[in-house]
Amino acid sequence: MRVEVLAIGDELLDGRVADTNTLRLADALSDIGLKISQRTTITDDKDVIIREAIAIASRGANLCIVSGGLGPTTDDVTSESFAQLLEVPLTRDEEQAAVITERLERFGREVTPNQLKQADRPQGAVVIPNAFGTAPGFEITYEGCRFISVPGVPREFDPMILKAVVEPLSKEYVPGLKISLRCFGLVEAQVDKRLAAIHEKWPQIRIGYRAHFPEIQVSLKAADEHQVQLHEAADFAREALGLSLFSEVDEPFAAPLVELLKKEKCTVALAESCTGGLMGDLLTDAPGSSDVFVQGVVAYSYECKEKSLGVARETLDAHGAVSEETVLEMAEGIRRVSGASIGISASGIAGPDGGTEEKPVGTVWLAVNADGYIKTKKLTLPFDRRRNKIISAHAGLDLIRRYLLSER
Amino acid sequence: MRVEVLAIGDELLDGRVADTNTLRLADALSDIGLKISQRTTITDDKDVIIREAIAIASRGANLCIVSGGLGPTTDDVTSESFAQLLEVPLTRDEEQAAVITERLERFGREVTPNQLKQADRPQGAVVIPNAFGTAPGFEITYEGCRFISVPGVPREFDPMILKAVVEPLSKEYVPGLKISLRCFGLVEAQVDKRLAAIHEKWPQIRIGYRAHFPEIQVSLKAADEHQVQLHEAADFAREALGLSLFSEVDEPFAAPLVELLKKEKCTVALAESCTGGLMGDLLTDAPGSSDVFVQGVVAYSYECKEKSLGVARETLDAHGAVSEETVLEMAEGIRRVSGASIGISASGIAGPDGGTEEKPVGTVWLAVNADGYIKTKKLTLPFDRRRNKIISAHAGLDLIRRYLLSER
Repeated sequence: MRVEVLAIGDELLDGRVADTNTLRLADALSDIGLKISQRTTITDDKDVIIREAIAIASRGANLCIVSGGLGPTTDDVTSESFAQLLEVPLTRDEEQAAVITERLERFGREVTPNQLKQADRPQGAVVIPNAFGTAPGFEITYEGCRFISVPGVPREFDPMILKAVVEPLSKEYVPGLKISLRCFGLVEAQVDKRLAAIHEKWPQIRIGYRAHFPEIQVSLKAADEHQVQLHEAADFAREALGLSLFSEVDEPFAAPLVELLKKEKCTVALAESCTGGLMGDLLTDAPGSSDVFVQGVVAYSYECKEKSLGVARETLDAHGAVSEETVLEMAEGIRRVSGASIGISASGIAGPDGGTEEKPVGTVWLAVNADGYIKTKKLTLPFDRRRNKIISAHAGLDLIRRYLLSER
Repeated sequence: MRVEVLAIGDELLDGRVADTNTLRLADALSDIGLKISQRTTITDDKDVIIREAIAIASRGANLCIVSGGLGPTTDDVTSESFAQLLEVPLTRDEEQAAVITERLERFGREVTPNQLKQADRPQGAVVIPNAFGTAPGFEITYEGCRFISVPGVPREFDPMILKAVVEPLSKEYVPGLKISLRCFGLVEAQVDKRLAAIHEKWPQIRIGYRAHFPEIQVSLKAADEHQVQLHEAADFAREALGLSLFSEVDEPFAAPLVELLKKEKCTVALAESCTGGLMGDLLTDAPGSSDVFVQGVVAYSYECKEKSLGVARETLDAHGAVSEETVLEMAEGIRRVSGASIGISASGIAGPDGGTEEKPVGTVWLAVNADGYIKTKKLTLPFDRRRNKIISAHAGLDLIRRYLLSER
């Protein structure tokens, strides 16, 4: 089945409103095995709407999601355009007019002729009720293509598409048949390679990737009757991703780490240089982090590294602030100063300046010190200052998570 | 002039990547009096690219911005498609091939035949160099329409469009014909009220607002011949916005503060509780912050506030960690411990838990201590944990900026 999208609205082209519908629509459609072949964004202009609707049908589309142009203002000409395309009159749906009147009165707003215009649709079109706004949608068929016309506002668009397209189109539709796997520490190509076998072993499973810097999100989806295969594939994926898989739910990055620290009765303290406080920020985004986070120190200067963390001046002079030796002393120092069971440190050159031939911009050292367990890690990052900080802070916290899960 | 956009890439239609280019492109084009008439998003398919390019030209477009499909993988077929459309061969630009090789070697990556393929373009096309990635763009003309083809990645897309389209297209293009005013500490309705008079006094000026939490961005735009009025309106706006106006350029939030601190030969240290390190993170996003940022301490617990910052146990017991008395001692303490000339502190209840009747979630105290100057501020925030942290951290840093600008 060929699916297209026709998005109508000046505000989508002049920089006022960002398109956020496509991401969610693509996701919802993929749940029923459909994908979007083409998306056309146009202004509120009757001739253009008619021209593009004809083009869409002539390209062989079977289904076209039309968004926008259904509101009360004179700009809103979607219903009129489709009436003209079908060569039928616009007719008012009195039932929908009553719904609009009731809704406006409930919110204490005036019932104007313009508002009631939203109950007009091409004769013969099927109404799509709108539970979250005044403008109902409608469905017509032209040259073999079903045009489903709904408002573009996300909180109206989403439920109407679900009711009018996703639910009826597929008996298999069950919202629970999706498993999300969030990975850190691998690039997309590596994730793809580790999960490649799923395509052959479980062809019923659809795999999707989304890069949410700095993590990669993998989704596994299946129709209802393939629930067993979905769980087999998910177990395979969990095994293949190993410790890179850090969460399967929508939660702050550090939430699984905070849970682990609580379970293991560990506390943590941070000595940050190049990350500037971002490690602490990420850690404290997880509710409940106050139970495990003892102290953070942001030590940018040599003096502060000496005074607050007890890094030896000789170490700094001999190896520089961005070195394995210095991050080791920083991690040990913050652990000693704070009394936490785990100390973690980061020091690097985030950029844009400060790089040298030996230590270019993007060089970052991380260290963990946890009562006898000591680990360091060197990163060589190609990003700008902000992204270098983001990767470094995530990688620093990730060292503790991996330590708690495996390396003790 | 009719302008269209052709966006190429499966990832734009299957939910992997959101379109963020349109907002910024529309904004850049409006600076030179142009707007986007239509945007078409398609998959990486040669036949579809050719079909849509023909349709765009036949609709009378004079300019089409083409994004995507220029990378090294076999999916990337934009150059090939335009060569076929023009019935010319693909030719390799050896100069660009050398640039690609140099770039890859600099980042220690392998130079493969696929990578070099990016130097291929339709014979006769004009190259558009890419300073931020391996794939150069190109320009061709077909049926009277200029097709400007560039990568879709924003950090490559933006500067290439500026160089290839915005700057050459208009003699009127003077970067000064748009003035951006970034405000912190006012909500949009307040900004709107303060600037309302501009509409009457200078009707030639277009005012736009964009909310970039937690700041409000105001843009003032005018045609070339209204430069005088633009500057008059901008002066009026600067006066009306007062200290809420913190920057007129695209830079990190803390960059103007870092410049001020340098100018005044001041240094700063941070004592963070509820912000968890985010104040330090924001401060260190500004390049050069190492010159003025002495030390940060993230002190979540009573013990850490006592030990690291010298807050008296009696103060904590009598008033709690979230109190004016505690933030005053935190600011004084971090200043003493670090030797910085300015100490700033934040303590609050970010949520979702931890609120009481007397101190509900969203209660945040901030303090500044700067050699005799002492100021506190209480915030009562209605947001979720993340947004409460963001507002608090910005407001903490903003206290110093306002102090340095006015209150000394």
